[in-house]
Parts: sequence; C-alpha cells; structure tokens
Amino acid sequence: MEHTIQDRYAPIGVFDSGVGGLTVAREIMRQIPNEHIVYFGDTARVPYGSKSKETVTKYSEQIVRFLQTQHVKAIVVACNTASACALDTIEKDVDIPIIGVVKPGAKAAVSATHNGKIGVIGTSATIDSHIYSDYIKELNSSAKVLGKACPLFVPLVEEGLWEDPVTDEIATRYLSELIDVGIDTLILGCTHYPLIRKAIARIVGDGVALVNPAYETALELRELLGEHNLLNDRKPELGENRYQFFVSDAAEKFKTFANSIIKYGILTAKTIQIEEY
Amino acid sequence: MEHTIQDRYAPIGVFDSGVGGLTVAREIMRQIPNEHIVYFGDTARVPYGSKSKETVTKYSEQIVRFLQTQHVKAIVVACNTASACALDTIEKDVDIPIIGVVKPGAKAAVSATHNGKIGVIGTSATIDSHIYSDYIKELNSSAKVLGKACPLFVPLVEEGLWEDPVTDEIATRYLSELIDVGIDTLILGCTHYPLIRKAIARIVGDGVALVNPAYETALELRELLGEHNLLNDRKPELGENRYQFFVSDAAEKFKTFANSIIKYGILTAKTIQIEEY
Repeated sequence: MEHTIQDRYAPIGVFDSGVGGLTVAREIMRQIPNEHIVYFGDTARVPYGSKSKETVTKYSEQIVRFLQTQHVKAIVVACNTASACALDTIEKDVDIPIIGVVKPGAKAAVSATHNGKIGVIGTSATIDSHIYSDYIKELNSSAKVLGKACPLFVPLVEEGLWEDPVTDEIATRYLSELIDVGIDTLILGCTHYPLIRKAIARIVGDGVALVNPAYETALELRELLGEHNLLNDRKPELGENRYQFFVSDAAEKFKTFANSIIKYGILTAKTIQIEEY
Repeated sequence: MEHTIQDRYAPIGVFDSGVGGLTVAREIMRQIPNEHIVYFGDTARVPYGSKSKETVTKYSEQIVRFLQTQHVKAIVVACNTASACALDTIEKDVDIPIIGVVKPGAKAAVSATHNGKIGVIGTSATIDSHIYSDYIKELNSSAKVLGKACPLFVPLVEEGLWEDPVTDEIATRYLSELIDVGIDTLILGCTHYPLIRKAIARIVGDGVALVNPAYETALELRELLGEHNLLNDRKPELGENRYQFFVSDAAEKFKTFANSIIKYGILTAKTIQIEEY
C-alpha cells in the first residue's frame, strides 16, 4: 500500500484485553514521543488469557475493525494472549503495518541468554500456544524454552498487590521449576507482569535477566514505522492531546487504573459497543 | 400466562457468568430431582463481578433470549452479580417465573441472625449495588448489614486453591472487619464461595452462621414451581439425560471443572455464539 504524507500524522492503534497493554503504550510514549495513540482496552470481555483461540481471535478482529474506523496508520497488539492467538489471522485482514509483542520479546530473550535456557511466563492461553518457544527456536534452534502459566498474577496485579507477601508466595510457587532448570533469562509474557517485576526479580534472583517485551515492541515499532516512511516528524504542541482511550466497559475504573500506570493525566476514556464492529 | 400440562416437563433454565452457578444447579438437582435443567455458563465473557450494571444487564438479556429458545419453563439467575444488576430488567422481558439468588439469600440471613448484624461478601459489582442490604432492610429494618467485596476469591477458587494457606491469608484480610463489628451471620454472596466454605468458616469461627443462597434458592424455586403448577411429577428414567450444558467458550475446560462440582458425570457441554441472541 502506498502511503501519503498525511498518513504520518495518523495515530497508532494499540489494543489489549484491558489495562495491561498500557505498559506497552507507556513504552511507545517514551520511545516515540511524537506519535499519537488510540488505545482500546476490552474491559467488557477481559480477561483473554483463560479463553480459547477462536474467541480471542473473534474479539481481536472486532477491535481491529474499530481501530480502522479511527484511521490508524499501524496497529500494535499489546496483549500477549491476542498476539499468540490472533495475530496470524488479523495480519491478513489489514494492509497497514501490524505487530504483536511476542516476536520482539522472543528476539530480546535470544539476545539476552548466555546459557540458552529461557523461561516464559504468561496466561494459560499464551503458554498453551507454545508461540514463544516456536519463535525462539526459529532464532536459536539449540535454545531450551520452558513455559509456565501464572493465572493468579493478573488478578493479584489488578487488586494492587504489587508489593505483598501473598504475591511473593504465589510467585515462588510458579517460578520454582524455572529456577530449578537453571534459566538465565525470563520473558514477562503478559503485559500485566512488568507491574510486579520487582517481586519476580526478588524470587528469581540477580542471575536471571528479565525481558519485558513492551520495551522491545516500542523499539521495533519505531523501526517498522521508519521503514514504511510513517514516523511522525511533527513535535507535539504544548498541551496537545495526543492520546485517546476507548474501552468496552467501566470507563471510570479504567481511568483510575490507567492513571496509576501512565503519568500523562488521562482525562477521558470513552466506552464503545465493541460487539457492533 | 396460562400453563399447559406439557409445560411441567419443560426444563428449568439456569445461568451464570461461568462455572459458579453450578453450585446452584447442584442444589436444584438435590432438592427437586425430577426437574430437567438447561445450564448456560458465559465462559467467553466471565467474570461479571468487575463489570458495569449496563454490561451485565446486556449479557443477561442475551442469555435469557437463548434460554427461551430452549423452551424453559422457568429461569434461575444463578449468579449474584447478574441477580444484583440485571434481574429487575430481565423480569420484564419474560412471562415465565424467574428468580435470582439474592432475595432467597437475604431471607435466609434474616432468619439466621440473632444479633441483627449480617455480613455480605461478594464481587465488587454485587457489593456496590447494595442489593443484599436493601432486601434485608425490607425484611428487618433494624438489621445492620456490612458488605465486603472479595475480588480475589473467584480466581483463587478457579485455580483450585480451596484448601491453601494463601486462600486463608486473603480470607483473613477480607473478613477481619466483618469479624470486628461482631456479625453473627455471613452471606456467601457469590456462587463460587461455597467452594471455599471451609476456609471461610475457619476464619470467621463457629459463632458465625454461613448462609449459602444456592440452597435457599433451590427451595424457593420448588415453591414457585408448585404455585404455578409447574413441578415435574415424572420421575426420571434410569439413564435419562436430564441435564444439558451450554457455554460461550472453552467447553472442555468447563466440563472438567463442572465434573469436579457435580457428581452426575457431565458428558457434553456445547459451545454457542451468545452475542447472536
């Protein structure tokens, strides 16, 4: 598809099952500060991590159709579960650049590991998909990848127990088998997990590098936009509102949580009927 | 509406946001064993407890329309959140008997209390609705009702940590303020909670009566069917399949969990597209 000069000023669409993708949006804001963002959080149907590939794909396709009504120039699937389950399908639906968080995360882990033993933690759907393992082995066929689903991490994060003995206890249970096999790199394969990064680091110890795919995704997005000649070269004006937030439910609650993650003062979040897209 | 003799043999529709309502279905199976049941669990959109009244109502209305395609003779809203948020609306949509779990639970608590101090635990949506408090005060205006949202209980139950120090620790935190005010009765205001009844009982102690609205709901349903001349007087034949299960996602996972709650050997659960109703 040919791009016009106007496309550069269009926003980037970023979506997630709920609030977790805000950790990805935050990295994009940091790494490519000129860009405008339209964020969608599927708060009516969150979480995705316990649902089937078919359902996650159907929901992701609806969201992509919504984002296209907002004339986005590129799409970031800021949700590991949706990246794992739906990216291969939705890539075929659009003719704009689209990236997920899994490939960048896998790439960063392969660069980080010394002993070739990589752990991946994520939702049940992400871990069951084996997608991190598949990507990692494409890059380094001798790497050993051990995945572990951590279904309680999301509710613990959403309850605000970021620094809490209960979170440490649950993390110890989930992570012990990864420590036992001697991983030296751990992918935080769910966008909620960077929020309990400190607890995870305490349990796995200094010898294990933590990979946050959000950071790598923002860098890869910048590169991708550059390749397509779509980087926004216009500096934001003072007070300009570059970020728009949409949700499928409970906009006020989203706003409160979002403001605890992103320090830009999120003033409004608009509720839309996502099933209609 | 006039009922024909055939209506007696029609099934009862029972629905929940997911698996929790199976504790209600189980009580119906025990208390009114002649009845056939069509159960629907909204596993694609679970949980409801963190969502808005509008969204929970919209989802409940779709489910009621689905259950009507199954020609049910009565509907049980086997979900506290849906009973709290949607029952007043969906009652107007149907001309068959429909009951929720909140009113029976409130009635039982008022009968059980001696000191008039009643605790209610449930999802955020149920507690924020103040519906238990409103019903209880209709029955006993001098009762004191203290509600407490326990958002981590559902994920802990779904993770199978029914007997676990982490569940006890979280329960201690949630329940301490109810114990401090001296409640003598506690309503388990979410259909998942009976599954961690032992842990809750350990924390609150012998002096507090635990009310499980599922039991009271089954009794009230029997009474209601009797009043409408809708009780099924035909004993089930040996091997007859009286129970049908439908979900909106992940039927296999539902079946596994359901079989751990209901000892009838659930052989099949069918996935339907609930948004289309």
